Amino acid sequence: MMVIMKPGHTREDFERVMTRIHEAGLEGHPIVGVERTVIGVVGLDRLHPELADDIEVMPGVEGTVPISTPYKLCSREFKGDDTVVNVNGVRVGEGTVTVIAGPCAVESEEQVMATARAVKERGASMLRGGAFKPRTSPYSFRGLEVQGLKLLAQARAETGLPVVTEVMSEATVQVVAEYADVLQIGARNAQNFFLLEEVARTKKPVLLKRGMSSSIQEWLLAAEYILAKGNPDVILCERGIRTFETAARNTMDINAIPLVKEMSHLPVIADPSHGTGKRRLVGPVALGMVAAGADGLILEVHPSPDHALSDGAQSLTFDMFASLMANVTKVAEAIGKRATVAV
Amino acid sequence: MMVIMKPGHTREDFERVMTRIHEAGLEGHPIVGVERTVIGVVGLDRLHPELADDIEVMPGVEGTVPISTPYKLCSREFKGDDTVVNVNGVRVGEGTVTVIAGPCAVESEEQVMATARAVKERGASMLRGGAFKPRTSPYSFRGLEVQGLKLLAQARAETGLPVVTEVMSEATVQVVAEYADVLQIGARNAQNFFLLEEVARTKKPVLLKRGMSSSIQEWLLAAEYILAKGNPDVILCERGIRTFETAARNTMDINAIPLVKEMSHLPVIADPSHGTGKRRLVGPVALGMVAAGADGLILEVHPSPDHALSDGAQSLTFDMFASLMANVTKVAEAIGKRATVAV
Amino acid sequence: MMVIMKPGHTREDFERVMTRIHEAGLEGHPIVGVERTVIGVVGLDRLHPELADDIEVMPGVEGTVPISTPYKLCSREFKGDDTVVNVNGVRVGEGTVTVIAGPCAVESEEQVMATARAVKERGASMLRGGAFKPRTSPYSFRGLEVQGLKLLAQARAETGLPVVTEVMSEATVQVVAEYADVLQIGARNAQNFFLLEEVARTKKPVLLKRGMSSSIQEWLLAAEYILAKGNPDVILCERGIRTFETAARNTMDINAIPLVKEMSHLPVIADPSHGTGKRRLVGPVALGMVAAGADGLILEVHPSPDHALSDGAQSLTFDMFASLMANVTKVAEAIGKRATVAV
Amino acid sequence: MMVIMKPGHTREDFERVMTRIHEAGLEGHPIVGVERTVIGVVGLDRLHPELADDIEVMPGVEGTVPISTPYKLCSREFKGDDTVVNVNGVRVGEGTVTVIAGPCAVESEEQVMATARAVKERGASMLRGGAFKPRTSPYSFRGLEVQGLKLLAQARAETGLPVVTEVMSEATVQVVAEYADVLQIGARNAQNFFLLEEVARTKKPVLLKRGMSSSIQEWLLAAEYILAKGNPDVILCERGIRTFETAARNTMDINAIPLVKEMSHLPVIADPSHGTGKRRLVGPVALGMVAAGADGLILEVHPSPDHALSDGAQSLTFDMFASLMANVTKVAEAIGKRATVAV
Repeated sequence: MMVIMKPGHTREDFERVMTRIHEAGLEGHPIVGVERTVIGVVGLDRLHPELADDIEVMPGVEGTVPISTPYKLCSREFKGDDTVVNVNGVRVGEGTVTVIAGPCAVESEEQVMATARAVKERGASMLRGGAFKPRTSPYSFRGLEVQGLKLLAQARAETGLPVVTEVMSEATVQVVAEYADVLQIGARNAQNFFLLEEVARTKKPVLLKRGMSSSIQEWLLAAEYILAKGNPDVILCERGIRTFETAARNTMDINAIPLVKEMSHLPVIADPSHGTGKRRLVGPVALGMVAAGADGLILEVHPSPDHALSDGAQSLTFDMFASLMANVTKVAEAIGKRATVAV
Repeated sequence: MMVIMKPGHTREDFERVMTRIHEAGLEGHPIVGVERTVIGVVGLDRLHPELADDIEVMPGVEGTVPISTPYKLCSREFKGDDTVVNVNGVRVGEGTVTVIAGPCAVESEEQVMATARAVKERGASMLRGGAFKPRTSPYSFRGLEVQGLKLLAQARAETGLPVVTEVMSEATVQVVAEYADVLQIGARNAQNFFLLEEVARTKKPVLLKRGMSSSIQEWLLAAEYILAKGNPDVILCERGIRTFETAARNTMDINAIPLVKEMSHLPVIADPSHGTGKRRLVGPVALGMVAAGADGLILEVHPSPDHALSDGAQSLTFDMFASLMANVTKVAEAIGKRATVAV
Repeated sequence: MMVIMKPGHTREDFERVMTRIHEAGLEGHPIVGVERTVIGVVGLDRLHPELADDIEVMPGVEGTVPISTPYKLCSREFKGDDTVVNVNGVRVGEGTVTVIAGPCAVESEEQVMATARAVKERGASMLRGGAFKPRTSPYSFRGLEVQGLKLLAQARAETGLPVVTEVMSEATVQVVAEYADVLQIGARNAQNFFLLEEVARTKKPVLLKRGMSSSIQEWLLAAEYILAKGNPDVILCERGIRTFETAARNTMDINAIPLVKEMSHLPVIADPSHGTGKRRLVGPVALGMVAAGADGLILEVHPSPDHALSDGAQSLTFDMFASLMANVTKVAEAIGKRATVAV
Repeated sequence: MMVIMKPGHTREDFERVMTRIHEAGLEGHPIVGVERTVIGVVGLDRLHPELADDIEVMPGVEGTVPISTPYKLCSREFKGDDTVVNVNGVRVGEGTVTVIAGPCAVESEEQVMATARAVKERGASMLRGGAFKPRTSPYSFRGLEVQGLKLLAQARAETGLPVVTEVMSEATVQVVAEYADVLQIGARNAQNFFLLEEVARTKKPVLLKRGMSSSIQEWLLAAEYILAKGNPDVILCERGIRTFETAARNTMDINAIPLVKEMSHLPVIADPSHGTGKRRLVGPVALGMVAAGADGLILEVHPSPDHALSDGAQSLTFDMFASLMANVTKVAEAIGKRATVAV
């Protein structure tokens, strides 16, 4: 951390800051500039997360500036090599494009089995489907719950596709972990710290969506909660952020893909279904995220999107999915990635 | 809901939409304009929250437009009179300015008792204090937990101030409800729907903070989750939203105060401590929110802010709090409100 | 500026940065920390605005951090005392609340004269009115242009109120300056640097609106353009920023008022008409901005808002304005300001 | 437009709205629903842009909803076929990826000639370079002005590459048009309506950057200003928007590419240099924007980016540019586009 003093600070202001730094067991190194004095704080200030805020409001202080990253275990510095998350043999983050596909919500045996077969045939590596659904309105369909989990397990039994599904509350972590291969944390729970730790404890791979207004740093700090509990298998998922633009449901943050790759060793995939909210935007944006380096895609596919109980507007038909997969393969190859798909 | 057809839509497109509307048990009334045809959907479309999304992506459809509000119980239409929430005799929302004050986190008996006495003497009506703390970094202080709750109860016993404290996880709702008078839902849990419902079931008053990127409509829908479970005692709390501006910690949304008053019958208070993140901004912004019509304030106060374990930067000293209370009283009177404070 | 080196940087990386600093005529002071090395750059880096960007992408560099503010003449450090802008005897920023009122656009002699008389009688100190109107759509009414300027001058002649009006293009600066007392730069021209300089040259007071997505720092840099051309008479105006919230037209940034007061010596007023976009929000938000310390208000008032050619939705009737002025006076007094109004 | 009445509106409120609609020469068609009455307004409401605002604040009115798009000439409805902009034989928007490259600012003859040759050899179709530079700070380098224009013309003479350069003020439109082949409107002037019209009058192709906080609709309305003056040759350019995320300079809006393609017939290219602000993000994001369907790229390239007078941090070296061009070609082919590059 650096402490920036105000131009007119007094000697006493300066001493007070130095004292506060020493109280925290750290050392202060002043540099006197033409317009400003700054104090470099030497020591592990990550262990004193409050110190910056405290100093920032002391008299004579202009502000403070972090130097170290606040996250550690998920940083590139801590681990240079890419993390590859192994989900029952599907390896995410190993120079491939992993496609996870399925309905937004599990609605019936017929729907989930048909979709699982269809996405498998067309090249998906994992099956997604919501059994517990977070809904902005209390009047919306909230999922089949445990019955939904059982249908997902049945689809896995038949197709061999590992299952990714969302867990929304600590109370259901155990039951979801019993059926799912990857536990998904949704955008609305991106800073539900108790849930993050509870999910970490299952030791199952976690798909961690970025919060709607999470900075990349906060997103990595959420991952840090999981890694700090001894679970290294985190797959990050960019799903669009909230901005002033309302022409699409969210603003897909394509910059986040190369930024995460630089800041962290964790794999990062993209969710163009939520990132756009409109079926006809999903294809172009999916290809864009792959070309920008995403390790995979998670896509909503439905046998009859117009009648979906949830997120029909952004779900692809089987035909649209097939056509997209063909293009994903071509774009992946164009940037030198092995395609995961065998269609 | 209104469905807007594209200029070049076919007769078939139109019929398909009309059929979809009828399938949902609703009626479609077309209006043929100069450039566009629109279809008015008559019936309770709040009960078909997916319908709009589904229709929106049908061929020939430009988009849909909601007409009814998606929330009901918390709307002004449903209940014209202001809701007054009674917290052990402190009546929030009755033309007064209720001030809730206390430390960000409960740190020790000494700290919480001293603060409780100080804020009571200076005119606060309730005591705030965090026992369970949501922290962006897993390396930050996370509160004294149950020990913190006990200290808050002890402070209430001595001062008579009702206690407001945050509950972060379903697993701790019961224990928090045992000690607290008002259960606070923090910004990061603003869309943790399981937690909202669990808290509703305690039948205790709920202080519901706005999510960092929640629209006012989403905030009211979160309140709707609580009201729909039979708990009418919700106090809304504006605490700043996330925008591009970084000079303060958040952007305090002053417009939200009169907007909420218009859209809902629930009381709404303001949290300038989190809304600004900087002690020296708290005073002016607190006065501004009161002048704009807020039913109260929640303020962080600490005996020695520079050494707080959490949010020291935005905590007021006892003296600053006293001085602010004097000004709050004057501004409240200026806009014709009874001041709650007797200093 | 501080340069933060990456943990694994080489000796060569370090030397390259030191060399680049020396090339710019500045000095580098390294501090070696536990996890990072940082280099303090001593000298006037404001004169080398590109240096930070250049160093930021050099090998081994994590990033750079500014220490000095990029603006100078409008900073509190440069001038400790509040600037008071004298507009024909109306002193803005001298512990008072100056109210500027009038129609969004000048539409007719009758409309502007009636409004000028009405706002004067009800306590306004200056008259506003648009002769040249920036319109998002080319199909909207764009103002009476020079004819509008003449009508404003006529209203000043009768009422004595100084005239504030917007200038939108360099080509019209001279003609606007001929008739107006204060030249307004609108939000859409907040970074139209040629226009800023052209307006500065007239030596008339300038009302500088904040851009819709300008940070406070960028807003002050826009003011710096004017001050740097030798014109010290700038009145800043907060008019709402663009965020994800769409329930009001913009998000009024109340935090900006105390922040600007801290960062700059220039007076700052508020425009709740544009900041909310809805007539019924204007009153509460106006009072809030005054309570937070704004030096004044600029308000849209129209004899018959439902028939205004521009911004009718946010214009106050004469009665609403009268009632608001009474409350502004009370709130101003509550915070110890002299009211400017004599009603 | 649809007018939505409040549930409790009176007969008188309803009649007043109907009257207001008739005053504008339009017709009102009421639909009475279960919870709400809405009034469909039939007629060309684009010609009455104020009507919606006026009605919105009338008693008994909940709000209004636009049905028609506010822009016309640039809409897909108005013209179904893609517009191809012909710049001295370089055809933009014809199923190809057009690459415009060059330095941020023209600094010297040596720099601009070397860069022009280098980008031509590596496959660029046009040369970019700033002679007049918009700078946030008045203390930054603002370009060589006319001397810069002459150097660009000299580079065109030698390489044959058409020249794209920014015009910042009405006063310089003529001189810029004399030397440039494409006039660029920068993000800060995206709503400088006088400049838009002045540029339109030159009849030269215009590269119109999206404003930092312009919605896609506002961006198209800015294009409408140019088309409405009889100049059909507009190339839109997505350059990143301002959001809460600060890890990159802006947030590149990839969704905007397919959205613009759907809403408008105009070609749209991407500027990953400004959209990311960091050289090492430019490559991945450029490929992503191409895969999402952008008609081209505009890229900053500099012989020695560490010593650039402007935007060095985001400029590519010649080698990075060569390598990126090879990948752009592959990605373009993967999505079935003819590559424009012959390397």
